[in-house]
Order: sequence, then C-alpha cells, then structure tokens
Amino acid sequence: MLRSMWTNAFLPAQKYCNASMLSRQKIADEVSKLLELKARLGDKNGEEAPSKLLLKTPKGTRDYGPEQMALRLAVLDKIVTVFKKHGAETIDTPVFERKEVLTGKYGEDSKLIYDLKDQGGEILSLRYDLTVPFARYLAMGKISSIKRYHIAKVYRRDNPSTTRGRYREFYQCDFDIAGQYDPMMPDAECIRIISEALQSLDVGPYRIKLNHRLLLDGIFAACGVPSDKFRGVCSAVDKLDKNSWSEVRKEMIEEKGLDESSADKIGAYVSLFGGMELISNLRKDDELMKYESAVKGLESVELLFKYCDILRVTDKVIFDLSLARGLDYYTGVIFEAILTGDDVGVGSVAGGGRYDNLVGMFDNKNKSIPCVGLSLGVERIFNVLETKLNKEGAKTRTTEVEVFVATAQKNLHEERMKLLSILWDAGVKAEQSYKRNVKLLAQLQYCEESGIPLVVIIGEGELARGEVTLRDVASRAEVSIPRASLIQEIRKRL
Amino acid sequence: MLRSMWTNAFLPAQKYCNASMLSRQKIADEVSKLLELKARLGDKNGEEAPSKLLLKTPKGTRDYGPEQMALRLAVLDKIVTVFKKHGAETIDTPVFERKEVLTGKYGEDSKLIYDLKDQGGEILSLRYDLTVPFARYLAMGKISSIKRYHIAKVYRRDNPSTTRGRYREFYQCDFDIAGQYDPMMPDAECIRIISEALQSLDVGPYRIKLNHRLLLDGIFAACGVPSDKFRGVCSAVDKLDKNSWSEVRKEMIEEKGLDESSADKIGAYVSLFGGMELISNLRKDDELMKYESAVKGLESVELLFKYCDILRVTDKVIFDLSLARGLDYYTGVIFEAILTGDDVGVGSVAGGGRYDNLVGMFDNKNKSIPCVGLSLGVERIFNVLETKLNKEGAKTRTTEVEVFVATAQKNLHEERMKLLSILWDAGVKAEQSYKRNVKLLAQLQYCEESGIPLVVIIGEGELARGEVTLRDVASRAEVSIPRASLIQEIRKRL
Repeated sequence: MLRSMWTNAFLPAQKYCNASMLSRQKIADEVSKLLELKARLGDKNGEEAPSKLLLKTPKGTRDYGPEQMALRLAVLDKIVTVFKKHGAETIDTPVFERKEVLTGKYGEDSKLIYDLKDQGGEILSLRYDLTVPFARYLAMGKISSIKRYHIAKVYRRDNPSTTRGRYREFYQCDFDIAGQYDPMMPDAECIRIISEALQSLDVGPYRIKLNHRLLLDGIFAACGVPSDKFRGVCSAVDKLDKNSWSEVRKEMIEEKGLDESSADKIGAYVSLFGGMELISNLRKDDELMKYESAVKGLESVELLFKYCDILRVTDKVIFDLSLARGLDYYTGVIFEAILTGDDVGVGSVAGGGRYDNLVGMFDNKNKSIPCVGLSLGVERIFNVLETKLNKEGAKTRTTEVEVFVATAQKNLHEERMKLLSILWDAGVKAEQSYKRNVKLLAQLQYCEESGIPLVVIIGEGELARGEVTLRDVASRAEVSIPRASLIQEIRKRL
Repeated sequence: MLRSMWTNAFLPAQKYCNASMLSRQKIADEVSKLLELKARLGDKNGEEAPSKLLLKTPKGTRDYGPEQMALRLAVLDKIVTVFKKHGAETIDTPVFERKEVLTGKYGEDSKLIYDLKDQGGEILSLRYDLTVPFARYLAMGKISSIKRYHIAKVYRRDNPSTTRGRYREFYQCDFDIAGQYDPMMPDAECIRIISEALQSLDVGPYRIKLNHRLLLDGIFAACGVPSDKFRGVCSAVDKLDKNSWSEVRKEMIEEKGLDESSADKIGAYVSLFGGMELISNLRKDDELMKYESAVKGLESVELLFKYCDILRVTDKVIFDLSLARGLDYYTGVIFEAILTGDDVGVGSVAGGGRYDNLVGMFDNKNKSIPCVGLSLGVERIFNVLETKLNKEGAKTRTTEVEVFVATAQKNLHEERMKLLSILWDAGVKAEQSYKRNVKLLAQLQYCEESGIPLVVIIGEGELARGEVTLRDVASRAEVSIPRASLIQEIRKRL
C-alpha cells in the first residue's frame, strides 16, 4: 500500500510531461534580471524607491515547483537507496555554523561565504559545504568512526550562471566514511558507490578519474617545484578541465612564479592518463621514483586499482594525472566523475577524496580521524535529466492521487465527502473538487490532465441503487459497482 | 525489495533502543552553555581570546545524530503519506527571502527574524515560517490554485528552552489549500488531515480546538472593544493556553487599555467551549447576534461542524471560544490540536487556519488568493515519541543493512569484497569491516549490537567447497549454502 515517496517521477507508466520546464526557468531568470535592473535604475535617478514590492527570490536562488520537486525527490531517493545499500546512517547539522568553524578551510573561496548579520550574540555564517560541518560534528562528539550520508542545501555567494544550472543555494549529496581503517578499503567502496549511483540514475555513459595528492606532490618535487608552491601549482592544474594547457602554463609561470622548464615538465606529466600500464610506466621513471611521496602515492593508486577490479568498476575508472581537485584539505586519493555522452556538455557530476587531517583542525590536541568521502553533483544531474525528460516529451506526475470522487448532478457534495471519508479510512489516495457544484465534464477533464487513474462517480441514480460508477480514466470504460465492494474493486485495479 | 526510506524506526520487529537519547541532549546543552560562559569570561578579563576553537553548534541549534534522524525521518514519512493521501504536491523555496518580503507579516515577532549581513547586493533574511514564502510563491507565479505540502526548517531568534524541545532552527511541516472554493470544504479537510496525521503517529489522545476570527471580532464588538483594539485583545486571549485568566485580564486592562467591564464580558465568553449545543446557545445571545461578523462566524463554525461530522472527526473537535491564535494574518476559521494524554504536558502539536488576504499583500493590484492551511508541530511530536521510545526501552536501527560479510581467518578480505560485489549487484544491503583482518567474534558482536539480521561467513574451508556459512544473528543458527544459491537464500529469509 505505502509506496516510497520519491519514485513517482521515474515510473515508466507515468510518462506525462512538462515540455517547457527548462525554458520557463530561463524566462524566469531573465525577468528577474530585468526587474532588478529596473529597481536599480529607480535608485540611480534619485527618485523615491517604488513602494511596490519587488517580487522575486534572492539572486542566484529559485523556487522549486511541483514538477521540479517530483524529479528532485525521485533522484534523491535513488541516491539514498544506493547509500543505504552500503550501510550508511544519516545525520543533519544546522544550516549555519559559528563563523570560526568555517574560517581557514576553503582558501581563497572563503570570500564566497554568506555571513549573518551581527544581531548580538554569536557571529554566524551559512554552511559552504557539508564536509566541514561533518568534521566539526565528529570532533565535537568525539566520534571515531561512522559511515554517514547527508543531503542538504549549501550556500555560496558566487556569481552563478543560473541558465547553466549553477545557483547560490544548491543541494549537496555527501557520503563519507570516517575511521582508522586499512588502506584503500573505504576509498574503493566510494568509487563503487559513485558508479552505482550514476548507473541507477540513468544519466548515460560516465568515467571516474582517479589521482593521488601524494603522487602529485612527488611529480611537482621531481619537476623542481619548491614545496611551498605545491598547493598553488595544484590549484592551477585543477583548472585543466576548463582551461587549455597554455593558459594553465601561463598561470604557473606568471602568477605562481614557476620557471618555464618546471612548468613544461609538469605539462608532460599531467597529459598522461590510462590504467594499470600507466602505473607500470611511472614505476620505471627513475627521476620520479626518487621521491618517497611519489612512490607511496603510486602504491596507493595500484592498490586502489586492484580493489576497483574486485568491486567490478575497473571499466569505469581512469588514472588521470591532470586531476587535482581544488580544495586544500585532500591528503590522499582524489576522484571525479564526468559524463561522456555526446549531448551532455562537460563538467563533473561527482567528486571526492581522502581528507585525513580536517577533523584534527577542530581538536585541541590535533587528534584527527581519517576520512574519505564523495559528493554527488545533483544539481547538474537534475539538469541532465530534465533536459532528457523534455526531449522525450514525458510528463511527470506531481501527485499520487489514485481516485477522484466526482458527482454527476448538483448538490451532492456531501455524498462525495461521505465517500471520500470511506476511501481515506481505507488508505486510498483520493480527492474531489472543493466546489459544491461542478460540471462532470470538468471533473473528468481534470483527471485526464493530471493523470489520476480512477474516477468514482455518484449521481442520484447510483445513490438510489446503492451503487457507484467506476471509470477508468485512460480507457474511459465505466462499470457499475455496489458500494460495499468499491474498496476491493479499487485495490484490484491499482 | 525497495523499502520506504522512512519507516524503519517504526517497524515493531526492530525495537532496539537508545535509552540515553534525551539525557544526552540535556548534557550537550549544559556543556555548551558552560563553554560559552567560559569563552565570555576570557573576553571580559581583557585577556587575548583563547586560540582554541569553541566547539559547539550555534545557540539554539543542534546536530541530529543517526538515532534522532531515524526517528525524525520516520515521523516525516508518516506525515507525508497522509498529505499525499489528500492529493498534495510539494514545493520548496529558498531558505532566505528578500527582507521586504517578511516585513509587516509577523507583528511584534518581527524582532526574532534572522537577518543576513549586507555583503553588497540584496538585503536578506532567513525564513521565519513557510506560510509567507508560500504566499510570495503564489503571487509571484500568479498561481490561482494549488494544494501543496512543504517540509523545511525555519529560523527564529527566540530565547528557546532547548531542554523543553524549543529551538532557533526547527522543522515546519505545512499543508495548505489555495484557491477560490466553496465555504468550509477545504477547511474541513484540513481538520481531517490533522486528525489522520496525529492518529498515524500514535501520539496518544488529542483534541482539535476550533474557533473563527469573525466570531471573535463579533464578541469583542459586543463586549464594547473598539475595533482598533481587536488584534491586541486577540493576542491577549491567545495567551490563555499558558497564562491564567487573571493574568490575561490584567494585560487587557493595563496594557491594551480595556475597561474592566469589557474585560469581564470577554472573560465570560472565552470560558465557553463545547459542540453543536454551544452554537445553538450563542445563537440565542441577542446582544451578540446584533453583530454581523458574529452571525457570519457562527454560521461558518456550524457548517464546519456539519462537514467534520461527514468526515468522521466530530469526536475529535471542540468549539473553543478561548482559541485566538497569535498571528495577524488569519481571517476565518482557526484551529489548534493539543495532546490530552496524562503524561505529555501541555502545548499545541498542530495549528492553522484561513488567511484570505496574505497573498494580496504581495500583489500590486491587491488581488488575493484565499488560503487555508495547517502546520504540524513536529518538534514537539519528535519529543513526545522520543520520550515514549525511551520508556519502552526500544532501540531504533539507524541503518538498513541486511547482510554482514565476515571472514573466519586472516587475509581473506579480497574474498569478502568479491562476495560484497555480488550482493550489491543483486540489490542486497550489505557491508563488511574496512579492516583487512578482524576477529570473527568482533564481527559477530557488531552484528548483534547493530541489529543486522544475517551474516555470511567465509573461511578457507568454505572457499575450498564453494560454499558459505549463513548465520541468523538473532537465533545464532548457522547453515552451509552453495555460493550459487546464496542470493536466493538471503531473499527467502528477509
């Protein structure tokens, strides 16, 4: 009887569609920009601000209507199913943190943090991701091991391109394993989870790129980069998914102060990608193998590849030396999933890695808890799936109503309510018009438009005979049924 | 196979318990207060602020751990099931709004709104409830009818008593019907929904108090209150659920400037409660019946009672003239549910009413959409159920793991991973230890503690024979099974 709350949008039998979902979003975005411009112009002219309320959501945010929510909940439900298959619990943390909790965790992106006004009391900021609050949670509760997922919205004062699906308020969808465990065992499971999630969401072909922060450090050392420039060079390499090598090279030389030959050596390394054979080739690189961190990093990648093979995801993973990940806190394996289909554009749909020192930043004795985790880029996944649904012309049902109770004559609204009571008591999802008198045709049309499968019709004749008419909306076939067997008949048909 | 994500905590077969859940919360609250005091003392002594990070969540907020989340999600799932049974869609709005959207909606409570810092751009505030954002959503989208639920957190800079379960960040759980409909038809369904939700949550006996804003206005007029004092007197009456009549009377006279005889007349009215007979008695009150709003309000209550009877909730509702509801925006029927069991204390667990003019406040032409809605006080419901679970000594499972894969000897961790791959591919919820070598006893103990029903054990003997040992955790019975029939055997037992 009880169906899971999040599966409706994906039931193939319910392929209705809202063909204009994306374009509506675009129009709303443009209108909102124009409105804001208009408001600003008013200010600049020195005129009195218009007394009319500017009716919009804050910049970079949006409302989610019923169609969008149905898709989102269906996506999140599939992801939660995967997380639970791997034994995860869930937790929640406040939407804001004491500002000092976030300080020093995000490097130059800290300027994007939303602060709350000082209204007397603590200085607070909205959460920027779910990882730092998770680390704070572990340190505060002295929790030494947990496998948890957390799905919630995070906030970044970015200048997002809302038409490309980037917002200032957006969902994150994280799974992390904290605890002192043996090498690569939790890490490999994270890769498997990304793969399972993308598979179950049916977003098309994908690849998971792998690399290791220690190996990158070894490469930078072998290329003659001084160790205090490792993080800066790393963040330059991270831009290779958006910028060309020549742009990144320029940044390394002009902004990070690298000499040309170091940059070119790095350029040769970060163009490499492959599988086990790349690992063997790097092992033969005597210059690189002089550096302990390169040796350790490579050993880790090799073990991870072995485990990926056992967990049957080798065909999805690729060892890619250009993968760097922006965040400072990673200390080991890093990974990132991209869609490789023709029509989906570029960009990551999942990412993560190992961060063994973050929890220690919250502990007075610097005691840390090793962690590895992944984050699914659900906003991009929503976009890809919305585009796909639009193309297919499919319609998403936004309610789960099974039965509509209609009347064929006037002044029978109390009879409708009596019948509804019986249906609700039996757990049937049912509704009626809230108007006392409404044309039968209008009631039937509503059912066809909203995809309600069954209609129970009562008229004076039916009442006199102790019957109801049961109509199948799709076939428009009607049968008379004694009131006493109505519930049974409805259950049979659903 | 797929189970609903939110039902686990309520499955009677899984009555484990965390007996110390509430007391842990209390301890955490006290520790956090002490830490804050300590930090402030440091400041006052003029010493340098301690470099150590104060490890706490912001005042009035908390983390929800796995046990608390399991209970919360189970409660919310039951509520969503009821909302969906009545045909509701869901929407979501941003956690913050442009400040002007919230201005002038909450009366003197506006001081409790959290503002964001002005970081250049719009002036924003965190949402204070879900009703005002809903009205903004309707006006902005020019939506003339919708039946929607919205479950999300809201923010109030109150001085909450966290030990009594009141917080600055808390869930609201709203269901509203917007649209131009016939009198009391949606209103009566809201009452039915509150009743269904409380029933399904098994919180014990409850009553739903009803009243009508127009009737209250009529009463105030009949008692000689000038119309500009209606709202002020109304908010005094609203305090009758916490304060005695003599306190409220004092407020009316000393703060609201009412004369004693008016106050005493009001006192006589607001002591009345009952059912249909109270309606008849008020009809005979000639003085009251001179006022059109009293006549209209009473007619509405009578019709609502009639519909409540048809919807089979009359035994739960009570017409109570002391019910006033604090918020300014109500215009018609108001209602509030309270628990009446011996051991649950006082306080409302649901409330709501009709607010026909709120949407119009956002429309430039003042065009409004009539609305009626309810809000379930889930934080109080969580508390009541946590206390109940503690008393019963029940344990809530926080994961849904079905099978634990264990090894009986050393160096078999790759075999565990191979088997896990097969289980995950088949959709079985399964996990292992992330340590290569771990004692069998420790693995079995973990399963007993965390309520995992089945263990698959592999040792060298099993591997040689192409078998596994399947252990039932509760009975500790073990059987040998060929690997090929493992999935089938697991499915049979779950």
